[in-house]
Amino acid sequence: MLVQILGSAAGGGFPQWNCNCRNCRGLREGTLNARPRTQSSIALSDDGVNWILCNASPDIRAQLEAFPALQPARAVRDTGIAAIVLLDSQIDHTTGLLSLREGCPHEVWCTEMVHQDLTSGFPLFDMLSHWPGGGLHWRPIALERSFTIAACPQLEFVPFPLHSSAPPYSPHRNDPHPGDNIGLLVRDRRTGGTLFYAPGLGQVDAGLRARMATADCLLVDGTFWRDDEMIRAEVGSKLGSQLGHLQQSGPHGMIAALQGLAARKVLIHINNTNPILDEDSAERAELAAHGIEVAFDGMGIEL
Amino acid sequence: MLVQILGSAAGGGFPQWNCNCRNCRGLREGTLNARPRTQSSIALSDDGVNWILCNASPDIRAQLEAFPALQPARAVRDTGIAAIVLLDSQIDHTTGLLSLREGCPHEVWCTEMVHQDLTSGFPLFDMLSHWPGGGLHWRPIALERSFTIAACPQLEFVPFPLHSSAPPYSPHRNDPHPGDNIGLLVRDRRTGGTLFYAPGLGQVDAGLRARMATADCLLVDGTFWRDDEMIRAEVGSKLGSQLGHLQQSGPHGMIAALQGLAARKVLIHINNTNPILDEDSAERAELAAHGIEVAFDGMGIEL
Repeated sequence: MLVQILGSAAGGGFPQWNCNCRNCRGLREGTLNARPRTQSSIALSDDGVNWILCNASPDIRAQLEAFPALQPARAVRDTGIAAIVLLDSQIDHTTGLLSLREGCPHEVWCTEMVHQDLTSGFPLFDMLSHWPGGGLHWRPIALERSFTIAACPQLEFVPFPLHSSAPPYSPHRNDPHPGDNIGLLVRDRRTGGTLFYAPGLGQVDAGLRARMATADCLLVDGTFWRDDEMIRAEVGSKLGSQLGHLQQSGPHGMIAALQGLAARKVLIHINNTNPILDEDSAERAELAAHGIEVAFDGMGIEL
Repeated sequence: MLVQILGSAAGGGFPQWNCNCRNCRGLREGTLNARPRTQSSIALSDDGVNWILCNASPDIRAQLEAFPALQPARAVRDTGIAAIVLLDSQIDHTTGLLSLREGCPHEVWCTEMVHQDLTSGFPLFDMLSHWPGGGLHWRPIALERSFTIAACPQLEFVPFPLHSSAPPYSPHRNDPHPGDNIGLLVRDRRTGGTLFYAPGLGQVDAGLRARMATADCLLVDGTFWRDDEMIRAEVGSKLGSQLGHLQQSGPHGMIAALQGLAARKVLIHINNTNPILDEDSAERAELAAHGIEVAFDGMGIEL
C-alpha cells in the first residue's frame, strides 16, 4: 500500500493566513527551520495508479499540483482520484469537494452522521448534484464493518468511531453520535501492511490501543504539544481537549500513548502553534528520541 | 487606488486539476511559455494597509501567502483584509470565505440576490454564524447606488447589474434577476483614478460601453478566445456565451468591444483552454497589437 501525505497541517494550514505567532511569523520571515504545510489530507493506493483520497482539504488544488500521480494522464480530462473517503464533516476535511466539481461524478464514502451534516448545515451533496452524473454518489460507511472500494481492491478499510464532536453547523452539534468522527484501519491484503489513520484523536482507551497494536504504521493526531497551547500563544480560548485533540506531552499525552507500540509512528494534522514544527526545537528532539516522526507534505510511506 | 491581482484564472485555475488540454499539459511539462494562475480575485486599497477583497476564491490561502500586504503584521492575529465584496455567488468567487473563518467577523458586501443564494443553496452566512462575532455581517449592495466602505474611505463603489445567470444551486437559477451578477466601477476620490471591473461579462451594450468610457482601467472578462473553445478542446459541451462570457475574437467579441476606448485594458478570469495563456501564441500577439494586456497573479495596477 502506498500512503501519500498531501497535507500535514491542522485547519488553517502553516502558516495560517491571519496568524502571526512565533511559528507563522518565523516561517514567513525565513528565521524558523520549518516547512510550510497545507491542510491535512492523504491518498492511498494499492497500485500507484488508482488512489483513494482520504479527506478533501481546502488546499486540494495545490496538493494535486504537487503530486503528479494524481494528475490527468490518460485522457483530456482525467484524474488519479478513484474515490473519496471522509472521516468527518469539518470544513478543513470536506471543502475540497467543491474544487473537484469539474470531475463529477465522484464516489464519496462517509458515515450516516457525516452525510447528514453534508446534506443540511453544509449541503455539499445537494450543491454538487447539479454537476455531471449527479455530483457526489454517497457510499455509506457502517461503523466496525469493513469495506473495500472497487478501484483499489487490495485495500480493506475498517472504520471505527472516535470520541470527538461534530462541526458547529451540524444539526447534531450538541448531541454527539458515534460516526461524527471516525478513524480507519487500512490493510493491504497482498502485502499485509496495515495503516492506522486518525488525524483527530481525543483519547486513546484500551480498545483503541489494541487496534493500534495491529498496525504497521500509526498516522495519528499531532495537533497540539500542550493542551493549553492556543491560550498560551494568545490565539484562542479553547483547550485542545475541548476540540477533540490529545496533546503530545505529559504523562497521559500521545507520546505516552504510543510508547511500547512496535509500529512506525507518524504525527499528522499539526497546528500552526505546535513547537514541533520548528525542526530545531527541544520538543521535536523529544519526539525523535521516542522514535516519533512528523508528517510533511509530499511524504510517502509504503506498507 | 491600488489594484492587486490575487488570481487571474477562471474557475478551476490554470492548470486545472483534472485537465490535460494542450495548455494544462504544456504548463505541467514545462513546454509552454505560460504562468500558472489561481482563480480570479482582486484586492483594492486606498492606502496600501487596508484592503477590500473582491471575491473570495478557493485558492485564497495560497493567494494571501503570495501577497505580504495582506498578511498579519500588527498583532498575533491580524489581516489586511478590511472587508469583502462579492460580485456573484459562484463557487469560484465565494468558497474562500470558508478559509477566512479564523478571522471572523467579516463585513461582506453583496446584493440581495447573492445573499439569498448564500443563505440557501450554499449557506455560507448560516455556516459561519457559529464563528466569532457571528461570522459574516451582510452589507447589502443596491444596484446603481454608490457605496463606500469605512476602511477605505477614498474608494467609491458603483455597482451595476450584468447579464448572466445565477449558479446551479441558486433558488433562482432558472429565474434570473438583476443582481445575480454585478460589475463595479470603483473611483478613488483623491486621485480620480477609476477602475471598471467585470470578470464575468456576457455582452457589452451601449449603456455598458458608456460606463466603460468613464474608466481609466478596464479589468474585464477574458475567459474564452472563441465561443466554442471548450467544445473544440473536447473538455465541455457548452458555449462560452451560454456561461455568460463574451469571446475575445470575432467582429462582436471583446477585442472589438474595447476598440476606441482610451483606458488601460486588462483581461482577467482566463480559462485554462484559452490560447492567450500561451505567451508565444498568435492570439496573444493579436491582443498585444490591440493594446490589451492579460492579467497575471501578482500584477499590481495603480490608478
